[in-house]
Amino acid sequence: MSAKHVELVEVGPRDGLQNEKISLDSALKVELVLKLIAAGAKKIEIGSFVSPTWVPQMADTSRVIKMVQDQLTGTGRSRKGVEFAALVPNRQGMNQALDLGLKEVAIFASATESFSKKNINCSIKESFDRFIPVMVLAKKNHVKVRAHLSVSFGCPYEGSVSEAKVVRLAKKLVGLGCYQVSIADTIGVANAGQVDSLFRKLKVAIPVAKLAGHFHNTRGQALANVFAAYKLGVKVFDSSFGGLGGCPYAPGASGNVATEDLVYMFDGLKVKTGYSIKELIEVSKWFENRTGRILPSMVSRAGLLMPKGIIE
Amino acid sequence: MSAKHVELVEVGPRDGLQNEKISLDSALKVELVLKLIAAGAKKIEIGSFVSPTWVPQMADTSRVIKMVQDQLTGTGRSRKGVEFAALVPNRQGMNQALDLGLKEVAIFASATESFSKKNINCSIKESFDRFIPVMVLAKKNHVKVRAHLSVSFGCPYEGSVSEAKVVRLAKKLVGLGCYQVSIADTIGVANAGQVDSLFRKLKVAIPVAKLAGHFHNTRGQALANVFAAYKLGVKVFDSSFGGLGGCPYAPGASGNVATEDLVYMFDGLKVKTGYSIKELIEVSKWFENRTGRILPSMVSRAGLLMPKGIIE
Repeated sequence: MSAKHVELVEVGPRDGLQNEKISLDSALKVELVLKLIAAGAKKIEIGSFVSPTWVPQMADTSRVIKMVQDQLTGTGRSRKGVEFAALVPNRQGMNQALDLGLKEVAIFASATESFSKKNINCSIKESFDRFIPVMVLAKKNHVKVRAHLSVSFGCPYEGSVSEAKVVRLAKKLVGLGCYQVSIADTIGVANAGQVDSLFRKLKVAIPVAKLAGHFHNTRGQALANVFAAYKLGVKVFDSSFGGLGGCPYAPGASGNVATEDLVYMFDGLKVKTGYSIKELIEVSKWFENRTGRILPSMVSRAGLLMPKGIIE
Repeated sequence: MSAKHVELVEVGPRDGLQNEKISLDSALKVELVLKLIAAGAKKIEIGSFVSPTWVPQMADTSRVIKMVQDQLTGTGRSRKGVEFAALVPNRQGMNQALDLGLKEVAIFASATESFSKKNINCSIKESFDRFIPVMVLAKKNHVKVRAHLSVSFGCPYEGSVSEAKVVRLAKKLVGLGCYQVSIADTIGVANAGQVDSLFRKLKVAIPVAKLAGHFHNTRGQALANVFAAYKLGVKVFDSSFGGLGGCPYAPGASGNVATEDLVYMFDGLKVKTGYSIKELIEVSKWFENRTGRILPSMVSRAGLLMPKGIIE
């Protein structure tokens, strides 16, 4: 048996849904999370405590988390080995996470000033100032903090992004106490060459175990990017079931890399993900049936090759 | 300047169109080929001399080749550095290729008996018997012969395929005198792990310079597969502009990996392909406008990141 493994952070319920036009009621979100756990998800970014004015899709995060917790307790199903995290933009969000007993939160910074202004309405420096009280509260309450570093490979407003700046900001986030920084290709422009180049520089500054990759498949490059990062020793990747988060039929589609497409690759590489690909495909199909949304995952659409040929 | 380069074999006019429901008139095919050359194509699989009963889309191959030759001569445009090839199933097809003065042809074998029967209506052994007179004519006329080895990574009728058998057949094709064997994932089931494993074994039996990779993006894996093969020293890949050859909206979509998605990755890796990605995107957009077909290429759909942000 191979001991090789990667950790896939399922961000569908947060990054995926947040970028969808469809809106799900809380009960359906809860059902989704439970199905993802049954398929093998070990870590789920379950929601976000940002202002509901800015991101209405995440307004029911507290309710969803409570309902999931109740379900997991009520049915006797164990949540052992499954971790939840939620995005917290500031002290207020952190307090909401603490009230729910979350053991992990995620903060988010941007690699460019323009994106920081547009995305979180403040400069990079101001965003780091806001992280301080969050980190203090986290430390006091033994809560792990993960960081997302947005537009690390390219910015829709500024174009190319300085690798040195990404390394500096990632290092700063680790210095603040974040146990991991997810280097995000928010707009899906990265290619394998860029991934190789940036992660080589990041590894010099930060232990590779503290680095994660977050890729969108906007230009069809996400899987090759994951493979390039994996080849450098990166072992944690964010993904969304079905590739949720961007319409494949619209220009500028920007879904996260599909969890099942990733699992298909890692299964082939004999690298454990914890997922059952068959069950994961069922989750995506269930979601499509329930929402009428056609998901971009290619593996779910094409099916698996079985010992006696293809079963669609 | 980096001296790294790969050779991309543009198979859109053959493998792409052959798998499309849309049918193009000869003049449009010629325009397509000329536009591909203008965008930087160095080698084009331009058609197929199989029976028009079986593949009606290729019935005008001779006419298309003649028209392209006339255009290239007539306008004074040089075809220097551009190579054409056509598929020949047997002696008759080879004679058609010779009549047109083609300097390269391609033969096609299958890695499984079931696919051989379904695809070319004979056993693997019988197909190799048919190659003999083709190879004799080729040698006599100084024509290069390339081989495609179909379903090398999985068969829609038999499921998984023996690596040892693929290696044995590939070696046999080289032994017959083929200067290159394109190892084809005809149904798009390969993953990076499988590519790594199979090409490592192939390299032991055959010089890597004689190997090419042919991937379909049916399960979203094609680019990662190309990257995995490239990492092992494979330098020749087949692709179709726009990812032609399979509808992205239909189950079982099976388009070739999109040339522009490949070029996007190799540009990032600082590996020369000879293509201008901007012009290549224009070819795909022109094709979409002329045919009403929406192509699966993600790069063409999403656009490039420019120095001052994204231009869609």
